[in-house]
Order: sequence, then structure tokens, then C-alpha cells
Amino acid sequence: MESSWATFGRDLHLDLTGPGGLRAALLRALRDAVRSGRLTPGTRLPSSRSLAVDLGIARNTVADAYAELVAEGWLSARQGSGTRVAERVLARATPANRRAPGPADRADRPRFDLTPGTPDISTFPRTAWLAAARRALTAAPSEAFGYPAPAGRPELRRALSDYLARARGVRADPDRIIVCAGFMQALGLLSRVLRAEGGNPLGRPGDGWRQGDGQIAVESYGLDFHRHVIIRAGLRTVPLQVDEHGADTRELAALDDVRAALLTPAHQFPTGVALHPDRRAAAVNWARATGNYILEDDYDGEFRYDRQPVGALQGLDPEHVVYMGTASKSLAPALRLAWMVLPERLLDPVFALKRTGEWPSGSLDQLTLAEFLTSGAYDRHLRGMRLRYRRRRDQLVEALAAHAPAIQVSGIAAGLHAVLELPPGTEQSIVQAANWQSLALHGLGGFTDPSATAVPRDALVVAYGTPPEHSFAGVLDALLRVLPPGE
Amino acid sequence: MESSWATFGRDLHLDLTGPGGLRAALLRALRDAVRSGRLTPGTRLPSSRSLAVDLGIARNTVADAYAELVAEGWLSARQGSGTRVAERVLARATPANRRAPGPADRADRPRFDLTPGTPDISTFPRTAWLAAARRALTAAPSEAFGYPAPAGRPELRRALSDYLARARGVRADPDRIIVCAGFMQALGLLSRVLRAEGGNPLGRPGDGWRQGDGQIAVESYGLDFHRHVIIRAGLRTVPLQVDEHGADTRELAALDDVRAALLTPAHQFPTGVALHPDRRAAAVNWARATGNYILEDDYDGEFRYDRQPVGALQGLDPEHVVYMGTASKSLAPALRLAWMVLPERLLDPVFALKRTGEWPSGSLDQLTLAEFLTSGAYDRHLRGMRLRYRRRRDQLVEALAAHAPAIQVSGIAAGLHAVLELPPGTEQSIVQAANWQSLALHGLGGFTDPSATAVPRDALVVAYGTPPEHSFAGVLDALLRVLPPGE
Repeated sequence: MESSWATFGRDLHLDLTGPGGLRAALLRALRDAVRSGRLTPGTRLPSSRSLAVDLGIARNTVADAYAELVAEGWLSARQGSGTRVAERVLARATPANRRAPGPADRADRPRFDLTPGTPDISTFPRTAWLAAARRALTAAPSEAFGYPAPAGRPELRRALSDYLARARGVRADPDRIIVCAGFMQALGLLSRVLRAEGGNPLGRPGDGWRQGDGQIAVESYGLDFHRHVIIRAGLRTVPLQVDEHGADTRELAALDDVRAALLTPAHQFPTGVALHPDRRAAAVNWARATGNYILEDDYDGEFRYDRQPVGALQGLDPEHVVYMGTASKSLAPALRLAWMVLPERLLDPVFALKRTGEWPSGSLDQLTLAEFLTSGAYDRHLRGMRLRYRRRRDQLVEALAAHAPAIQVSGIAAGLHAVLELPPGTEQSIVQAANWQSLALHGLGGFTDPSATAVPRDALVVAYGTPPEHSFAGVLDALLRVLPPGE
Repeated sequence: MESSWATFGRDLHLDLTGPGGLRAALLRALRDAVRSGRLTPGTRLPSSRSLAVDLGIARNTVADAYAELVAEGWLSARQGSGTRVAERVLARATPANRRAPGPADRADRPRFDLTPGTPDISTFPRTAWLAAARRALTAAPSEAFGYPAPAGRPELRRALSDYLARARGVRADPDRIIVCAGFMQALGLLSRVLRAEGGNPLGRPGDGWRQGDGQIAVESYGLDFHRHVIIRAGLRTVPLQVDEHGADTRELAALDDVRAALLTPAHQFPTGVALHPDRRAAAVNWARATGNYILEDDYDGEFRYDRQPVGALQGLDPEHVVYMGTASKSLAPALRLAWMVLPERLLDPVFALKRTGEWPSGSLDQLTLAEFLTSGAYDRHLRGMRLRYRRRRDQLVEALAAHAPAIQVSGIAAGLHAVLELPPGTEQSIVQAANWQSLALHGLGGFTDPSATAVPRDALVVAYGTPPEHSFAGVLDALLRVLPPGE
């Protein structure tokens, strides 16, 4: 077994499409390896440093995953003998020789899930969607069934143009919109074009690219797989500190070789604050002065509960802000539909790259979403979801006030998750206790850019939007059980 | 205008997703440039050599496109003054400053289309598809609306496993099937894994990859964008001669550093012959003896009119043959759904690469296709299409016999296209005459691997499956008008 460590890292399936990012993917992969019998009880694992090198990820991520799996009982750590697979592991779910790829084993799923990234998918409006599909497919011209246009169906681009202007204050000519198979594809395309600016965006390895040509500023709290997409495109990332006013965009002026700043202005992910008007102005002014771009990730901009949502930053300067939205939070990740609205200067290179380097999304769901938008079904669905998520957030806040008054909820009343501030030093033990009770839960630590220098802050990221409605009360109880009781 | 030639190649939008491959994409891009006013009348074009270098394509492709556009009247060529935009060009479709990306302008479309790559999309079974969607979405578990599994929905993999075994003799455990967003994505993934075999399939530029590590044998007649996908993955291609028995797979044994052979055994594309049993055996024996792979492109294996289709090559040896099929010919390219069935050894690396490097296809169409397959709707649709295409082929053969008896139809009675053998030296003038009459038509020359050494063969590739039913008689008349009359 030890001889196979050379390929162990490569054989681990890190599924970054699942919830929870790289750390969660690594946890799933390691549990899979134990459960399937690839890692037998007593087997010694590679050092966190060596596995981190194999996987090309931060050592802390591996060390943290090992610690969590020790806490969960999958692994054991003994002084001087490294980390080993625990002797008393669960029964194997599948025979050792059946390493079938496929969706995660149901047995692997926690009973309760409060990890962010997925809306309550049990609410997908099946009937309304099917009705829209019927209208859309019946009305579609024959050419809609041919090879899809790389930029997306014109019907969807027109519908998005109207909707985004109305709901988010986005100035979006349909010609400026490119439909993507998710936010990650959009970010990947933009990163590759920004890396190549002044170079050759269609270039291939060997065409003179250098790793690390330029960087993109990111928020010091965010998703590690967003940073990975940027890094895989050959750029570096540099963190902007995030405080109660959002990302400190004033820092941009002092940074070298920054091509763009990736921001979540409406609702910082995951700390939940809105970008202060001064910071919005600083971001746009920097982009204008330098000719660079703000990449606006408006992942949950439709969900604000205390007031009308603040309009998109893009409305301030469509030639320096790229707007990005997605159906993954408002409808379902299964659709694999997202969109970006591009400045004139980026339109041709992004379009050329998408045309040649990526496969277009299927047309049928695009036609259906267009009909869903123009018929008003999207607005109706969002109204219902807003009420539902708002009620859950209220329930969470009330339950905390009653049962754990020491815990403060920070951030604005918006989105599908809340941040619970914890007493210093308690985050990791609470997350572990939750996982022991089959409650999947992330601490803020898992969303902290390892290169950011801020003082660590103990908090929980509680995605009240994730569980199905019927289980929400149970999830809330499970959460309260692992929180420190108030005085 | 002359000063912008440095970026002219980069600004050309080569849309490889459309029909007709690179040559057709270049033609469309150049016509777009003239029509939009980016290229004004009298403007001198870069030399074919220089544009070819800019675009990274063969000079012949550019020279051929220039010649065709001269023939069509878009460009003019004068001795000593190079190629220029013709003075009397069509009215501009859009103002010069609106270079909107999007589907090709309708005005650009020929009146009649006999180019291969697309089935008769006017026959898409909208009602049956919607009925399957209703059943599939109603029955789907909630988790189906979450992030899609990278290998595809389990419902679709099970349905394909049954269908492919029954209809094509494929031995396909559902765990061996990976759903892709089209054949090109499948070929791209396989190429990258085969390039990296013994290396690191997840590697990135700088991780030790060298261009040209290994090669894939291709048929000397085929699609240039398939070769381009292989080359972009860092492999070379080497042609196998194609004769009346299909690709000469006996040549494989003498080739160096070949990792795989990409073949169309059921119906060679585009020459239309079936791979001879001896050649099938030679292919599989080579793969077994060397540990390499046959990549079986079964693009139209369901359409055979004179007998039951020959089973897939994959059935002979599932551990050395990768089977690839698609819904693009049987249903519609708009679905962006294809599948591959993998040998055990390739399963993990292909899966790992798809998981990390590509975005999964949306789940809803996958669920619908699964239901479409299991309910028998797919079989019913194929039966109807088989009758329709067969009737068109018969009409074509009869019309030729009556009006152009010198023209022979070669290849088996199968698929969505036929090959018409022409008198030597007449192919190019017939194709140009057809284009003049707004009949889009390709000669065999456009499908000939430029590195193949066979004697050029004059022939037309007539995709009788492409036009909508109501226009087929008109298309046939237009074709007959440009063919040399019989004696």
C-alpha cells in the first residue's frame, strides 16, 4: 500500500462541483478511499505536506482535513507514527474493486446540511418550468435545434437583458450578454482573457505564456475554488481585506499588475456585508483610472429581505464592470446556466475564446429559461423563495436569541446564509461537534484566503437556504445543540 | 486598414461549432467581415500564407477560402495586386460599428443546404420530448436539481447501457459510461488523457508537458476539427489510408508512438464505406498487442437501410475500444449530449479530468433523454427518421440515374449523406457553381487530411439528411442543375 503513495494524490477524486469547495471535496475523497477499501485500516497516510504538494493545494487544507477526519473517527493520529486509517471504520459501502464514478454515495451524506452553495433544491418549480418548456419548445424555430450559438440563444439574451435591467439595474444590451454553463466557466473565460490581455487569448501552451502574468484581486473571505480557477488560468490572486464595509477596494491603487478585482458587492460571500458606497466608488474609480475591470459576482443579489436590493455595481460603469449572475441560486444548479454582461473591450476576446475553447450549453433549457423570465414565472418563483428564506432567517435569529444569546448574527438580512460570530477559539470544535452529529457545517476558517493577514475570526457560515423545508426545524435544533449556550 | 492586419487573424471569429468545419467557419468569418464593413471594398487582404500563420491553420485552407470567395464575388483577385474585397459587395446587414456576436446572420445562410453535420432538425420530436420531460421531471428526486454529477445522471447512464447493448452490441456497464456535452468534448478529454498516459493527466502548462508527445492515427478522410481537437491536446495525428474496405488498419503496426486510432467503423465519414471484417480484426488485434486504444466514433450507427447495422467494434473488446455516440445526429445538436463507454484503465483518468477540467452538462435534458430512451420514444423516433432518410437516399439515387447517369453513388446505404463520384478535375468547379446558386455543398477535398498521400479523388459529399423535408425536392433539383449531365 505504501508503494502506491506516488499516485495516491492523483487517484483522489476531488469533486469541486459539490458543495463546500476544496476542503469538503478532499474530505469526501478521503472518506471514499476509506469506505471503498482503497485505504485499509492501519494504513499510514502520506504527510500533509506531501499530499498537499501532490494535489497542488495548501498544506493547511490537508492538515485541516486530516484533523477533521481524526475527529470524525475515520483516521487516527498517534505521536511519532503519523496519521493512519482508524482500525474501527465503517462497513464498506461497495466492494473494494468497484470504484464506480458517480454521484456521492447517499450513505456519505450528512443527515442535516447547512453548507452553502446550493439553494433548497426541493423547491424547484417543476410544474411552472415544464409549462415554460412546453411554450418555449412549441414556439421555437427549427434552427433552435441545430448547433447552439456559442454566446447563447438570442431569446435568452434578450430576456436577460430586460430582467437584469429591471431587477438589478444592469445596463445590458443583449449583444453584450454571453450565456455560460455556470459562474465558474464565466470566471475561467475572463481569467484566461485577462491573463492574455496584450497577448494572445487563443494561445496555447508554448505560445509564449508565462505562469503568473498578472493577478486578480479577490476578497480575503471567499471560495477557494474561485481562486483556483484564476490560478489555473495562469494568474495569481491577491487578497483585499474584508471588514464591516466589505472589501477594502482602496487597497487596489497600491497593488501591482492587477488586471481585475473579483467582488461580491451586493452581499459579500460569506461574511454577508454589503459593499459600502465609498468602497463601490473606490472600486469603479480604480477600474476607470487604470483601465482594469471589476468582476461583479452577483450570486444572490435577488435575495434581500430588509429593503430593495442595492443595484448592481455594473450600472455605475458598464465599460469597467463585468456583471455575472447565475440560475444556480435562484433556480437550481442542475440547469448549469449563468450569464455575464461584458464591456465592449472584452466582448470580442471572451467571445472568441468561448467559441473555440469551450462547448456551448444546450439550447432547450436556455429557451425554457427565456420563457420562464418573460412570462413572469421567474419573478413569481423568486417572490416565493424570498418569503421562505426570509422566514428561515428570522427563525434562526429568534432561536439564537432565545437559546444562545451570546451568538451574534452579522451581515445584512439577505441571501441564503448567515454568519454567526463565535467566542474566540471555539470555531473548530463546534464544526467538529456538528459533523459528529451528522450536521454538515462550515466555519469561516474554510473560506479564509490563506494568504490574507487579518486576525482569524471565529464564526460559522450557516446556509439556512440549503435544507429542504420539511427538515428545517430539525436542522435548527441540531445547530442549537452544538452551539455554546448563553449565560 | 492595412495597419490592422497584425490583429486581423485574431479578430476573425472562427465558429467551429457550426456545420462544415474549419473551412466553412473561415468562409463565414470572412463574409461576416465584409458584410459588417470591417473589410471595406478595395481593401487588400493579407496573403494566404500570412493569415494561415495568424490562425494556425493550413495555408491551403485559406487559399481555398479566398478562391471560393472570389468565385462567389465577395473578393477579387488581380495579377500582381493580391486579393481584395470586391467593389460591388452586398449591402451591409448591420452598421459597421455593431459587431454583435450571435448566431450567423440569416442572410448569410444559403437557400439550400447539403453540408453534413446536422440531421433534419425540423423533425425534432417536440411533443414526445416534452412528454418525456414531464415524466422525467415529475419523477426525479430532489437531488437531481443540485450540482450535476460529472459523469452524468445515473438514470441516463443506465438507460444508455441498456440501449447501446441492444441496438449497437456495446458492452457497457453504466459505471463505464461518461456523459459529455458532445462528441468533441469526449474526443478532447480522451486526447488529453492519452497524451498524458504515463504522465500527469491533470497537469498544466509547465508541468512537463511537451507538444507532440505521441500521436493518434486518424482516417485520411475525416473532419478537420476532429484533428484540431487532438492537436490542441498536444498530440500529433497520422493518417491511415481509406479505400473501399475502410481505413487500412494494417498500417497501424508500422507506426511509431501511436496511442490510439480514431475510426468510424460503421460508416466511414465521409466516404461512406463500412470497415471490412479483416480491418476490424486488424484494428482490435493491434490495440490488444500494443495496449493502445481504438476510439470508435459511432456518429450515425443507427442509420443503416439495406440490412441490420453491424454491431459496434467495441463489442469485440471493451477493454481496448472506446465507444462514442451522440444525440446530435439521432435527435438534435441543440441537446449537447453525447456519451463514451470506457475501458477500465481509462475510466479513472478520464473521469478525474472531466471532474476537474470541464463543466458538467445540465441534468434536466439528461433526465429527459433517459426517459425518452427507456419509454421507447427514442426507438420510435429513429424508426421514423430511418424511413425518411432512406426515402431521400433512394430519391437521390433515382434522380442521379435518370438525370446524371455518369455520376456513381459510392458507399453503403446508410447514414445521412452519400458520396457522389465525379469525373476527375470537376469537383471544385461544381462546388463553386453550387455555391453561386445558393446551394451549400462540400467536395471530398474539404474532408481530406492534407498530410495524406493518396491520389486526390473528385467527389461530392451530399448530406441528404440536412434539409427540412418540405425543401428536399427543391434541393435535389438544385443539385441536379450543377452536376454534369450524363451522355
